[in-house]
Amino acid sequence: MSTKKSEAPFAYDGLDRVIHEKARLGIMTSLIGHPKGLAFGDLKRLCGLTDGNLSRHIQVLQEADLVVVQKGYQGNRPHTTCKLTASGRKQFLKYIDLLEQIVRDAEEVKAHGLANLKLKPT
Amino acid sequence: MSTKKSEAPFAYDGLDRVIHEKARLGIMTSLIGHPKGLAFGDLKRLCGLTDGNLSRHIQVLQEADLVVVQKGYQGNRPHTTCKLTASGRKQFLKYIDLLEQIVRDAEEVKAHGLANLKLKPT
Repeated sequence: MSTKKSEAPFAYDGLDRVIHEKARLGIMTSLIGHPKGLAFGDLKRLCGLTDGNLSRHIQVLQEADLVVVQKGYQGNRPHTTCKLTASGRKQFLKYIDLLEQIVRDAEEVKAHGLANLKLKPT
Repeated sequence: MSTKKSEAPFAYDGLDRVIHEKARLGIMTSLIGHPKGLAFGDLKRLCGLTDGNLSRHIQVLQEADLVVVQKGYQGNRPHTTCKLTASGRKQFLKYIDLLEQIVRDAEEVKAHGLANLKLKPT
């Protein structure tokens, strides 16, 4: 099945399913401005996630090489941080560009319908 | 778990999981500008979906009261169309507003980090 942009303008093939899940989207958004990473506690609070949920989603992101986890200590307490990989940063910026495209598409179609898409009659 | 915006700014609780799935997002985008609906053939082409996939996603959207399906004939051939419900239109516009918010969040955090969020130290 062909999904060229001109033939299937709303296929959104480039929309990464790993990033698109809403908890992971929150995690990636939290991390994008922090090259040194964020503590798990900060991520939990920012994304409204439980320990279990955060760990599960971080694991999915790790498996996709989007984030890395660094385990360490702060005094005597375990202090785990998470940061984007270079690939994660690149993929996330690409994903955000596509979200912008989707918003533009929705606004264009809402305002002018599909007139510019030259659909064949059905 | 509290997920007030101020406490968990990236929880994105309002992000409707039914609409957020990428094939359904394409279907909803295709339909937003067409109060009279679109033929299944058009939707398939616009969203790059097979018959089976389109039917499955349309069913999910129907169950959530976001779209309605009208079966009819054009000459002797079956001609099925699909359109947004009033609720579907409202929900989709709300969803698109939230996508815009996510894009703004990502750009803000990328540019200025979380400085404005006043995180407690960890």
